[in-house]
Amino acid sequence: MAKGIPRILVNGVGVIGKRVLDAVAKQDDMKLVGAADVVADWRVKIVARKGYPIYSSTADAVERMERAGLKVEGTLEELLKNGEVDVVVDCAPAGLGAKNKEALYDKYGVKAIFQGGEKHELAGLSFVCQCNYDEALEAAERGHRYCRVVSCNTTAACRILNAFVKNFKVERARLFLVRRATDPVKSDTKGIMNTVVPDSHIPSHHAPDIKTVMHDKIKDIYSVAVKASHTQFHFHTYDIFLGEDVAKEDVVEALRREPRLSLVRAADGVVGLGSIIEIARDYGLPRGDIYTIPIWEDLLAVIGGREVLLMAATPNENNVVVENIDAIRAITLLERDWKKSLEKTDRSLGVPKELY
Amino acid sequence: MAKGIPRILVNGVGVIGKRVLDAVAKQDDMKLVGAADVVADWRVKIVARKGYPIYSSTADAVERMERAGLKVEGTLEELLKNGEVDVVVDCAPAGLGAKNKEALYDKYGVKAIFQGGEKHELAGLSFVCQCNYDEALEAAERGHRYCRVVSCNTTAACRILNAFVKNFKVERARLFLVRRATDPVKSDTKGIMNTVVPDSHIPSHHAPDIKTVMHDKIKDIYSVAVKASHTQFHFHTYDIFLGEDVAKEDVVEALRREPRLSLVRAADGVVGLGSIIEIARDYGLPRGDIYTIPIWEDLLAVIGGREVLLMAATPNENNVVVENIDAIRAITLLERDWKKSLEKTDRSLGVPKELY
Amino acid sequence: MAKGIPRILVNGVGVIGKRVLDAVAKQDDMKLVGAADVVADWRVKIVARKGYPIYSSTADAVERMERAGLKVEGTLEELLKNGEVDVVVDCAPAGLGAKNKEALYDKYGVKAIFQGGEKHELAGLSFVCQCNYDEALEAAERGHRYCRVVSCNTTAACRILNAFVKNFKVERARLFLVRRATDPVKSDTKGIMNTVVPDSHIPSHHAPDIKTVMHDKIKDIYSVAVKASHTQFHFHTYDIFLGEDVAKEDVVEALRREPRLSLVRAADGVVGLGSIIEIARDYGLPRGDIYTIPIWEDLLAVIGGREVLLMAATPNENNVVVENIDAIRAITLLERDWKKSLEKTDRSLGVPKELY
Amino acid sequence: MAKGIPRILVNGVGVIGKRVLDAVAKQDDMKLVGAADVVADWRVKIVARKGYPIYSSTADAVERMERAGLKVEGTLEELLKNGEVDVVVDCAPAGLGAKNKEALYDKYGVKAIFQGGEKHELAGLSFVCQCNYDEALEAAERGHRYCRVVSCNTTAACRILNAFVKNFKVERARLFLVRRATDPVKSDTKGIMNTVVPDSHIPSHHAPDIKTVMHDKIKDIYSVAVKASHTQFHFHTYDIFLGEDVAKEDVVEALRREPRLSLVRAADGVVGLGSIIEIARDYGLPRGDIYTIPIWEDLLAVIGGREVLLMAATPNENNVVVENIDAIRAITLLERDWKKSLEKTDRSLGVPKELY
Repeated sequence: MAKGIPRILVNGVGVIGKRVLDAVAKQDDMKLVGAADVVADWRVKIVARKGYPIYSSTADAVERMERAGLKVEGTLEELLKNGEVDVVVDCAPAGLGAKNKEALYDKYGVKAIFQGGEKHELAGLSFVCQCNYDEALEAAERGHRYCRVVSCNTTAACRILNAFVKNFKVERARLFLVRRATDPVKSDTKGIMNTVVPDSHIPSHHAPDIKTVMHDKIKDIYSVAVKASHTQFHFHTYDIFLGEDVAKEDVVEALRREPRLSLVRAADGVVGLGSIIEIARDYGLPRGDIYTIPIWEDLLAVIGGREVLLMAATPNENNVVVENIDAIRAITLLERDWKKSLEKTDRSLGVPKELY
Repeated sequence: MAKGIPRILVNGVGVIGKRVLDAVAKQDDMKLVGAADVVADWRVKIVARKGYPIYSSTADAVERMERAGLKVEGTLEELLKNGEVDVVVDCAPAGLGAKNKEALYDKYGVKAIFQGGEKHELAGLSFVCQCNYDEALEAAERGHRYCRVVSCNTTAACRILNAFVKNFKVERARLFLVRRATDPVKSDTKGIMNTVVPDSHIPSHHAPDIKTVMHDKIKDIYSVAVKASHTQFHFHTYDIFLGEDVAKEDVVEALRREPRLSLVRAADGVVGLGSIIEIARDYGLPRGDIYTIPIWEDLLAVIGGREVLLMAATPNENNVVVENIDAIRAITLLERDWKKSLEKTDRSLGVPKELY
Repeated sequence: MAKGIPRILVNGVGVIGKRVLDAVAKQDDMKLVGAADVVADWRVKIVARKGYPIYSSTADAVERMERAGLKVEGTLEELLKNGEVDVVVDCAPAGLGAKNKEALYDKYGVKAIFQGGEKHELAGLSFVCQCNYDEALEAAERGHRYCRVVSCNTTAACRILNAFVKNFKVERARLFLVRRATDPVKSDTKGIMNTVVPDSHIPSHHAPDIKTVMHDKIKDIYSVAVKASHTQFHFHTYDIFLGEDVAKEDVVEALRREPRLSLVRAADGVVGLGSIIEIARDYGLPRGDIYTIPIWEDLLAVIGGREVLLMAATPNENNVVVENIDAIRAITLLERDWKKSLEKTDRSLGVPKELY
Repeated sequence: MAKGIPRILVNGVGVIGKRVLDAVAKQDDMKLVGAADVVADWRVKIVARKGYPIYSSTADAVERMERAGLKVEGTLEELLKNGEVDVVVDCAPAGLGAKNKEALYDKYGVKAIFQGGEKHELAGLSFVCQCNYDEALEAAERGHRYCRVVSCNTTAACRILNAFVKNFKVERARLFLVRRATDPVKSDTKGIMNTVVPDSHIPSHHAPDIKTVMHDKIKDIYSVAVKASHTQFHFHTYDIFLGEDVAKEDVVEALRREPRLSLVRAADGVVGLGSIIEIARDYGLPRGDIYTIPIWEDLLAVIGGREVLLMAATPNENNVVVENIDAIRAITLLERDWKKSLEKTDRSLGVPKELY
């Protein structure tokens, strides 16, 4: 890496990429080189209109993008070849990251951060800031160049489970996820309708994915997932069996202390995801993003002393955005203290702890 | 009760009532007197058009119903006063059953069957045919006149759990219900949109409700429920902890043997509730009803030998219809053998065991 | 064609095909040979379970179907080669009809009926029973072997507009269609969510398609369409400009007299598609099919004497099923009187004129 | 009114009120006194958290609000009695404005702006800035104290039709509205599901409502409306008959010149409301608001020279917000030039003309 502040390129400006782009631009310890993509419609035009330099992810997309009126500054490969980028945040559609790694990042020796759509093995390091920042630091010190920010659901689960493993003896965790079916940006052409569709994998990928971050901190974990007929936020139910008796107050306090978790109450009128989404919009951050995981304090139950049942909402479009910023800091060794990175990121974006 | 075959009146022709009406009309061991209601729109007109005698549930509704062109044969109270009815199947909206009991059924000493929207205490007897038919018989012999068919979700859960308690040592059961938000008939004016809404009660009413039928056969049971943005079928996930090791094959076999449960496979293309609903329509019974509970055979998992995770769909509009028929037989002592009642009911309606 | 009653093969048992299959089986003047398809999941298994002989639409699908446990009687081509079929009702996915015609129907000289997903030019004859049965007869007498039943929306529009051209001087018609986004059977994997999506064609295909049936009976016709976020029934608004003054009563009467149209009233509680769907289910025909087009009598307005605005619902899964039966009669010259065919079809399937 | 800048109180912080609150706070020529409401849940708590002074709309709500932890500065009536408010922007639920006017605004002689849920007659003046700002000025000069900002749909229609009446000879306009069923904030508890529901009024209220603003500029106007199963943005189709021939280019140009209208293209990937909503969120204004009316340039058709068909989207939660600000200026005579007010408002809020 070049001395000084790392130069960042965001490859792919879909749901995650366009948010990471805005987030990187707000950091004072890293420099945004620009955004790369291959599409040429309003999705890239609105990125260009905001003033971000636009690159083409592949050479063959240049002509199409220019024909659509976009000013293309060059290709991603040219940038890498010329050593103008220190870290690529790869936000390409799931699976493309693997191709990009082989064709570009390996070849040019650039650092890269992948998203949860890629396999753990691709990066060899999966990341949630408050859970294993130190593991990423150690890998970076060994010269490891890759890091994978896990999916929105896995990130949310790791944050919540982290509050448990730090404070209690956890024996077993069961997760029941009611996923949104598609993102709003794709809702004109994709989706499911008036149905519930179970994930065809048992367990769903979330349980093994959590282990890539939390390793053996929770040995017995299982997850099942369904898709439901809505477009925003996943809904999580956790059934956590402890090896000791706990009081509800202690669990609530542990969640309150844990970063990037927020408490809401049905008794305050927060009766479902619709309320959560409206709160997020009212909060006033761009796109209605909140980054934090709302947990229903008054729907949390301790059953028989050692079993905790809780419900949470995952802002699937944006909770991993802050993790990408922290991941950049970790793999570039910009910051050695996870908490300082987390707080700096949250301050720069205005991430709330209390929602209302 | 008059000697001979019991005379049945269905009070309320909403989602459940209109189906019970059709089902009673198909039985050869009971006589349908007619249907009572208070509304005067297409919902009752289409019942009248099928040739069922129409009564008014309340005296003050007669004029409105007649003004709308309905031929009203009399009022419910007149029928009871004249001793023309042996059993009222009360399918009035939740809560009205309690009022009807006090004002009418207690007063005239008629037998009555209530639905799951009423409290257990109202009837003093809750019922799922294959679980506690004998309990209903005993109550009837003691002169008990009331019975409550539990809700669609509780009925489905009792049938499934029954297969477990009969075959295995059950230690603990956890239920996660993704409920439909409203029924199709109300979908023009009621509902939720693009959201998931958790039940404000922890546990949801299902766990204690199951105990009213299964009593202490499962001591440790807990349930949570959410509403999702669809209109047909509830989606259930069960996490059942056993006191012994089981093989998946044995669990599947126990479910296959249990009445009113059916096995489907995601590998056969049954990928969600939409597929289930289409299968139900293709099966060809009126309204696309199936009465049985589809369970995904290939999404059933045994975790660590003693924990069974399974997913099922509940045909919320109709699975309790067959229970109402059986409940009539039990509380009138028409039939002493639960299995004979169940098989007679299923044969008369064409209830499937295998769906495709 | 072989002397005597025509032998019918239904190729493709999707949404339309499986219904045509059941409908053909109910006719006493035609013989069902069986159903052909290429898929091997529950969709074909439930057809097989009903006892229909199953053929493979293509030779290469045989093995897959047999491996899935289906008994395959042979291939479609073998049937045609052996002269065992007089009419193929082609209900293959849109576009495949064109391939089948070239590869099979042309080659073996069999008659074929296509669906609205194929182009008019493929069949050279588009059909709605009450509009142009005679045209189909004339073509058949000339030896023309092909006929296309137009799409559900076009069929509904032709029936309604037919009532106008028969009774009034029509100058101009404008159609605004709010289409369902996908069918229930596909709702687990396809769809749109929480949106409205306009058709990218202006006019939508419906206006020119209506002309393939009604020719110059309505010279000035235009249509626009959007997809909305529901799965059953299209919603139509018609704005029809007449060359003469009319009274609302006369328009209503013309619609009442026209076959395969039904009147409903918002004042009777029929407030939207949800109510219509429930009425259809209550009516009691298999799958909740009704075949007729519900029109809101009390939402029909005559504006300024010469402009009629009306709203209708189209049962998109089934209204063309009856047209397929009539089309078979026309192109095989089985019946010379359109009205007799229509009435025979409707009687055999129990098609309602009044819905409640 | 007190000399100097007008002091504004927003009564009701629902969907419109909370946005007007934020918008007033951003103006440099008016002073925000605070917000009044009666609820005590997260909806008001998040308003309080932003630092706005909170008042109680009714005396009896004070205790409840304080018990919920809100700091209540006083009641609306106290504010009015003490002469501390010049203009109340009444954003109470539909119908309450009428009660408030009689009980409070008439009594204390304060100016008030009502929303489209109230009847025209209540205010005696209906308003869309670019259409009839001068009419509002004249009324204010006569001492008229009330003004009604028309509904989101009527506002959108007036803006679009204004472009036509200013540039072309309009003979007749027909509107077909596909409305969202409920707002996101209510989507947890209200809505319709998997249906389309026609408005029970023919014409819908929109056509007569447009006349309250545009008077006889369009003599022949008719509208019909349906609700569809989505929660954001209404979808409009206009069929406008002109008394002269036009070219599509001229129509597009007239729309481009008209304020608070924006052009989008399906060819740019803007294929439905889902895309529009994502663009609005990407644009980056709080809550994803855009205030302007997107019109599909490439779905606009001129039929036969004199008939224009066009499709537009209405950002129902926010397009009237800017009108409220302009209405304040008009009825307080703060600004005599409609264009200066409009531009000042749009500048202060960042309202886009081009969306991408």
